Amino acid sequence: MSDQVMYTLEPDEQPTHWYNVVADLPVPPPPPLHPGTRAPVGPDDLAPLFPPELIAQEVSAERYVEIPEPVLDVYRQYRPSPLYRARRWEQHLGTSARIYYKYEGVSPAGSHKVNTAVPQVYYNQLNGITRLTTETGAGQWGTALSYAAALFGVECEVWQVGASYDTKPQRRTLIEVFGGTVHRSPSRLTEAGKAFAEDHPGSLGIAISEAVEVAAQDPGAKYALGSVLNHVLLHQTVIGEEALRQLAKAGEPGADLVVGCAGGGSNFAGLSFPFLREKLAGNQDPRILAVEPSSCPTLTRGEYRYDFGDTAGLTPLMKMHTLGHDFVPSPIHAGGLRYHGMAPLVSHAVEQGYIDAVALHQNECFDAAVEFARTQGVVPAPESSHALAQVRREALAAAETGAEPVIVVGLSGHGLLELGAYATYLSGNLEDDPLSDAALAEALANVPVV
Amino acid sequence: MSDQVMYTLEPDEQPTHWYNVVADLPVPPPPPLHPGTRAPVGPDDLAPLFPPELIAQEVSAERYVEIPEPVLDVYRQYRPSPLYRARRWEQHLGTSARIYYKYEGVSPAGSHKVNTAVPQVYYNQLNGITRLTTETGAGQWGTALSYAAALFGVECEVWQVGASYDTKPQRRTLIEVFGGTVHRSPSRLTEAGKAFAEDHPGSLGIAISEAVEVAAQDPGAKYALGSVLNHVLLHQTVIGEEALRQLAKAGEPGADLVVGCAGGGSNFAGLSFPFLREKLAGNQDPRILAVEPSSCPTLTRGEYRYDFGDTAGLTPLMKMHTLGHDFVPSPIHAGGLRYHGMAPLVSHAVEQGYIDAVALHQNECFDAAVEFARTQGVVPAPESSHALAQVRREALAAAETGAEPVIVVGLSGHGLLELGAYATYLSGNLEDDPLSDAALAEALANVPVV
Repeated sequence: MSDQVMYTLEPDEQPTHWYNVVADLPVPPPPPLHPGTRAPVGPDDLAPLFPPELIAQEVSAERYVEIPEPVLDVYRQYRPSPLYRARRWEQHLGTSARIYYKYEGVSPAGSHKVNTAVPQVYYNQLNGITRLTTETGAGQWGTALSYAAALFGVECEVWQVGASYDTKPQRRTLIEVFGGTVHRSPSRLTEAGKAFAEDHPGSLGIAISEAVEVAAQDPGAKYALGSVLNHVLLHQTVIGEEALRQLAKAGEPGADLVVGCAGGGSNFAGLSFPFLREKLAGNQDPRILAVEPSSCPTLTRGEYRYDFGDTAGLTPLMKMHTLGHDFVPSPIHAGGLRYHGMAPLVSHAVEQGYIDAVALHQNECFDAAVEFARTQGVVPAPESSHALAQVRREALAAAETGAEPVIVVGLSGHGLLELGAYATYLSGNLEDDPLSDAALAEALANVPVV
Repeated sequence: MSDQVMYTLEPDEQPTHWYNVVADLPVPPPPPLHPGTRAPVGPDDLAPLFPPELIAQEVSAERYVEIPEPVLDVYRQYRPSPLYRARRWEQHLGTSARIYYKYEGVSPAGSHKVNTAVPQVYYNQLNGITRLTTETGAGQWGTALSYAAALFGVECEVWQVGASYDTKPQRRTLIEVFGGTVHRSPSRLTEAGKAFAEDHPGSLGIAISEAVEVAAQDPGAKYALGSVLNHVLLHQTVIGEEALRQLAKAGEPGADLVVGCAGGGSNFAGLSFPFLREKLAGNQDPRILAVEPSSCPTLTRGEYRYDFGDTAGLTPLMKMHTLGHDFVPSPIHAGGLRYHGMAPLVSHAVEQGYIDAVALHQNECFDAAVEFARTQGVVPAPESSHALAQVRREALAAAETGAEPVIVVGLSGHGLLELGAYATYLSGNLEDDPLSDAALAEALANVPVV
């Protein structure tokens, strides 16, 4: 057996197109609805927020979308991200499973978010936009957009969820190193923000409302979203496209299990949709599994209904698994998994039975992450640790039966700016905080009836 | 021209040997002396601190040392580190220079230090050692040793320089995530530590004394040093060996300028010694340049004399550029460049005229680092920023003359755990703090007369 553990791609093997899963889904996903009229939204409704190319991608049914050369030119700085065989972790677990992890932490911002930040900024700049607004939770999206904006000479303004802003000054500094501006959300700069007390811990929903409000009022500005929407998921498919090619290079004809963490859904979809294409085509038959936190269990306990993407109800209504648009999850450390909804495309694929979901407690996730760090030498983002904890369960089950599944797991980013969370875990003071039935019922009560 | 910017190596192209520059130096370097007798030290003198394989490497004159398979097996997890063409930075600078950076930040601990931590732990474990002690300044070495120790099941205890321990809790957490134990230095656990007040900011020299003292008293323990010594520099040559091969892949027959930051000297030597071999053999003629901080200007203002490696005078006397073994530099942010001495092999090569040195102020370095981050997407370690600032000077000079030098620069690590320093720089509150003549004279007065 080869002792190679890191798989890359030659320049001429790298993907030149993003993959649009809509083209291959037998049942089309339900359309988004206008927040006022409740009629399906058309491209015109989205024009105040997004440039035409992104709107076209949002509603496209084409199977492949060509990656523009200026975007490929940035991708070449850090892509392909490596696919690693986790041989030391396998040995430690005593498993017969073969575990491969696709590591997005090598990107300039340390996570997969750069994959969509770059094309989003590129298309905006192409349309004369000089200012982009956005929200950030864990901070990874704000970092990515700030970096991409610097490359294309666009101004970047980030509303950072209050709880994250207060506890992670390093994240703010990193955004500033890349040239972006950071506001604590809820801020005093918007009506959406002023609806909350200044020291409110904030939520992604509130921060989205603030960024959308500012962009809508400035003709030179647009808004950029780091997850959930179809075009964002589309851009992330470069992850899965590479992983398929790298897996083949590792001598594996296919995956038996594909695992990713799911917050808004873009990391998960980016890795898994190209595998779903192969599954739908009958080329491979992987089980595809989304992992979420017990404190924000959108797919496993949310309802599949039309709901707003933000707290103030400014976005279109999207059919998705939701905990309610004004749900404020407990401040668990995986800030990127604290969104009340789930990407409509991921939700639809779950409803259609192509994708399974599971929710885990955070102590189990950090435990797996520390074990992973000590064997593989990568400190995972707390978000990614959810996927790893589930992989550990599967690998230990394989050890029992002697099965030899090929597992592909998405390691969406590194956790080097989340060491405070690791310190809390190591001190034994981290608490699991699953969502209560009462809190869930209360949040769902405010979902609009469509 | 190719638009490729990242160069890697195929598995069969990767170096299998470390390079020992001693074999090619026309004048042999002066030997280390016993701290008591002042006679040249023999292998027996080093036996309490190091295992036999490392001692053999320390005194070896063989040109190539084979990398053991268990070490190669770990190297394969993160090596080759990528060589990047800094095309976007070049464009920003308007330079005709071609700048390549060798990026060691992809390693498990985020810096080049892992390259020597792994073989050091391996050889110790081979000799039945179950506990390793060491010091750490910026924290990169402690992190690397802690990770390597976890891989081989060895206990790791780290004395962290007080100033660094107090201001960088994340660094301590990272060492603990990898399973190591951290003590603030000066500690109450050693005589060397108790000689100083408990709230003393510490220095590398003090921390070395503490770690050496503890190792010397425990027969199951040895000490590990992250820089300075010949065997450490030897292990780091994997950087330069890879860079030479990658540069050839990029279509460059050779380098005109090789630049690295120099603290203890191992990062600098690791990149530059293989290039020095090519220079001595007449295959290439690069200028080789070490960059250090103005606040700790060992090569540019220190004296080339025998001095101790630590504050307490426990180590052998080494002929090196020194500011005096009890010199405590101002607490600049590049903790890894705060050592009073310089690797004897680097010092010797400077004396022989093969290597030049320059000292820079830290504000210029952070300015270059931020520019680099915004173009290349990598936040450099403050240490590495010194090398980048010098490269910027050279690149801007080339822009004036239209010269097209090929510049290879070592990016020894990322700065994601040093964002506090970046925040201070961005706020405009960072001060340059060059060493005064009076302070230098005072420190040099205590260098022993040999």
